Amino acid sequence: MTPSTTATAIDLPAREDIDLGAVLHALSDPVRLQIVAALDSRPDACPTGSIDVPVTKSTCTHHFRVLREAGVVRQRPEGTARLNTLRRDDLDARFPGLLDAVLVGSVSSS
Amino acid sequence: MTPSTTATAIDLPAREDIDLGAVLHALSDPVRLQIVAALDSRPDACPTGSIDVPVTKSTCTHHFRVLREAGVVRQRPEGTARLNTLRRDDLDARFPGLLDAVLVGSVSSS
Repeated sequence: MTPSTTATAIDLPAREDIDLGAVLHALSDPVRLQIVAALDSRPDACPTGSIDVPVTKSTCTHHFRVLREAGVVRQRPEGTARLNTLRRDDLDARFPGLLDAVLVGSVSSS
Repeated sequence: MTPSTTATAIDLPAREDIDLGAVLHALSDPVRLQIVAALDSRPDACPTGSIDVPVTKSTCTHHFRVLREAGVVRQRPEGTARLNTLRRDDLDARFPGLLDAVLVGSVSSS
């Protein structure tokens, strides 16, 4: 099978459908929070494997799926890889101040 | 057995031990979020049963325990009841802006 090279984002909730509970649940895991902080610090979309987290590849894939389905990250295929970006604009519009409070809190409490 | 009438809070984490992941997990449930919003709107400590949530008494008790163990609420016995208060000062000191962002988000997305 030829890998997809389309730049279309993999299925994710529209901005208006992002659920607060799902976002809070997605951010409640320390590894997922580490992924979100890493994405927030990078200007460009980055491959799943480029983020250094202390879990197996399959667990990392799972965490990215939880983040995508909650509306926290956007993923698009590029060849056989997936490029990830944080949906900061969508999250800031939907829940003003939430992402910043969580990221600041994660730094101050770590 | 004589019911305890001490005003000592039931075991809960100290402010500095409140964990961000535990707080986000506690707030990720819609019923718990409803409880937190109700407590935030009341100036005085209130009994568990006085908050109107669409769950059984035992489920409600469970939700309060999750909130207490995460550091979101304080509970103290009064006779056979438990009086609850939101730990707003502790949460605001530990994770500035988080609780407000969550409460505003819960209103705007409901």
